[in-house]
Amino acid sequence: PAMGIDSDDELDLTAGKSIYMISDGTGWTAEHSVNAALGQFEHCLIDRACAVNTHLFSGIDDVERLMEIVKQTAKDGAMLVYTLADPSMAESARQACKIWGVPSTDILGPITEAIASHLGVSPSGLPRGAPGRNFPLSEEYFKRIEAIEFTIKQDDGALPQNLHKADIILTGVSRTGKTPLSTYLAHKGYKVANVPIVMGVDLPKTLFEVDPEKVFGLTINPVILQTIRRARAKSLGFSEEIRDNYSEMDYVKRELEYAGRIFSQNPVWPVIEVTGKAIEETTAVLLRLYHDRHNKCSMPRISKRY
Amino acid sequence: PAMGIDSDDELDLTAGKSIYMISDGTGWTAEHSVNAALGQFEHCLIDRACAVNTHLFSGIDDVERLMEIVKQTAKDGAMLVYTLADPSMAESARQACKIWGVPSTDILGPITEAIASHLGVSPSGLPRGAPGRNFPLSEEYFKRIEAIEFTIKQDDGALPQNLHKADIILTGVSRTGKTPLSTYLAHKGYKVANVPIVMGVDLPKTLFEVDPEKVFGLTINPVILQTIRRARAKSLGFSEEIRDNYSEMDYVKRELEYAGRIFSQNPVWPVIEVTGKAIEETTAVLLRLYHDRHNKCSMPRISKRY
Ligand SMILES: Nc1ncnc2c1ncn2[C@@H]1O[C@H](COP(=O)(O)O)[C@@H](O)[C@H]1O
Ligand SMILES: Nc1ncnc2c1ncn2[C@@H]1O[C@H](COP(=O)(O)O)[C@@H](O)[C@H]1O
Ligand SMILES: [Mg+2]
Ligand SMILES: [Mg+2]
Repeated sequence: PAMGIDSDDELDLTAGKSIYMISDGTGWTAEHSVNAALGQFEHCLIDRACAVNTHLFSGIDDVERLMEIVKQTAKDGAMLVYTLADPSMAESARQACKIWGVPSTDILGPITEAIASHLGVSPSGLPRGAPGRNFPLSEEYFKRIEAIEFTIKQDDGALPQNLHKADIILTGVSRTGKTPLSTYLAHKGYKVANVPIVMGVDLPKTLFEVDPEKVFGLTINPVILQTIRRARAKSLGFSEEIRDNYSEMDYVKRELEYAGRIFSQNPVWPVIEVTGKAIEETTAVLLRLYHDRHNKCSMPRISKRY
Repeated sequence: PAMGIDSDDELDLTAGKSIYMISDGTGWTAEHSVNAALGQFEHCLIDRACAVNTHLFSGIDDVERLMEIVKQTAKDGAMLVYTLADPSMAESARQACKIWGVPSTDILGPITEAIASHLGVSPSGLPRGAPGRNFPLSEEYFKRIEAIEFTIKQDDGALPQNLHKADIILTGVSRTGKTPLSTYLAHKGYKVANVPIVMGVDLPKTLFEVDPEKVFGLTINPVILQTIRRARAKSLGFSEEIRDNYSEMDYVKRELEYAGRIFSQNPVWPVIEVTGKAIEETTAVLLRLYHDRHNKCSMPRISKRY
């Protein structure tokens, strides 16, 4: 959640409750689920009324290390969240937690079992890193790498002659989050180009020549934008003069109005409000619109085939 | 999993089994868990012995749309996976699935309940997008944005004078995955610089002046590297001549040996084998090493405070 701070160095392990996470893989699935669930406790986390420490142990594929961590979890009065593909490892975790009185949640087991009975196929029980379990050079692998390389090269209005090659084009004034959104989408396999809107600077002609269905405008509340720009100007060490112009409220408002006029001249471009949204949230809104246009389903959805 | 192909356009909904996913938020948590679980069925997915379609419905925060999707799920003989923060929505999903005979898995409920009883605090029941639930301009927000901007600017050996500002520096020959790894780490909040190793080109002096504990070497199997380079050379339209040199086996091997010598001259740099690893997997290995160095714990872990 929003207040997660990565702070190994000065971590005071005695303050607050702990959540231990174990995976035989990367641990990102467990971390993702725990983060989502912790979002349900922001009211208490935000003012430090409660404090939570998480400890992620990834690549745990032997029972000895597993037992060591469960013991430590018990000792620290923590709870355990695990994803273990090998059913005997998962069962060991469950049993050990029961014996040592550790509250525990299995993230992978229930969903895997549900899918197994839905498909009528038994799960392999093999962790993702297991030998012989590698299909690395898939089509999707290359697609994703290419999307990332493309997206980086197209950052900040670079190479406008390539806009027709993009799957998605983002446009908006400075600090609407075009760059982070672009790279996030790139990791999902989309080739993204972003084009800044700056008052007094012409937009590239090619932006108006490409399929308008792939262009998305970003907009933001002027007060929030000013806050972000101020932080930005400070961290870049802008001179007072430039800073004033860039983050001055009158200028911020006029630039947003200018962008708004461009958006209304291009009514096919959806305009996404980014105020208060995490990168993941803006991505969800955008991809919903993007796939909806391609599918023309009754209800917006993102479909994939495996 | 590796074989996931995003293919809205030509999706044949009649072939294979379907998994419907519903979230009141982005849906990425449900998707992540389903992806991990589908990894357990690669043996059957890989040769299309079974086929699976997933359909993600995000931002579902009213019971009417929820019911509509559950009905569709029943009609299609699909299963349902959901993350719904509002307990009455989650209960409606559970009940409706029961009535219509839809197999279903609640991803958020069990972990949230476990954390609630561990913390002794009730969950808010508010979805992430709910009004008044926005803490967007946190320290972590700015840190992440800054990390992404920094990382993009430092791609491919650019601005070597800034290497001291990076949290992590990646180095390795072309096509070891430095760029995708960099941006992935950046989204986790790390400022990353990557420096290519090219035979006959001197590495920047600053690489040897920074704290060596933050430098990581990447290495890869020469046969796999050649395959990747061939694909790359083709997609970039290299001339036969350059292509031969770049992806010729003898050259590939000599360049990897050259990199290997640099790594042995800098024994503090850990060398990570990337062959057959997804970006997420290399990230897990790297961050384990990175945090272990900072923590000096008995067991490598990544710790955070919330
Ligand atoms: N592609 C995959 N093949 C097999 N198992 C996987 C795959 N991806 C994830 N898993 C399993 O799903 C769980 C969560 O993975 P991770 O997010 O890497 O911790 C672990 O138990 C992994 O072994
Ligand atoms: N920061 C947050 N605050 C409250 N709820 C959250 C937060 N992040 C995720 N959730 C909830 O966790 C579930 C999964 O979120 P998502 O991955 O966005 O689909 C949804 O029910 C969200 O409403
Ligand atoms: Mg930018
Ligand atoms: Mg690169």
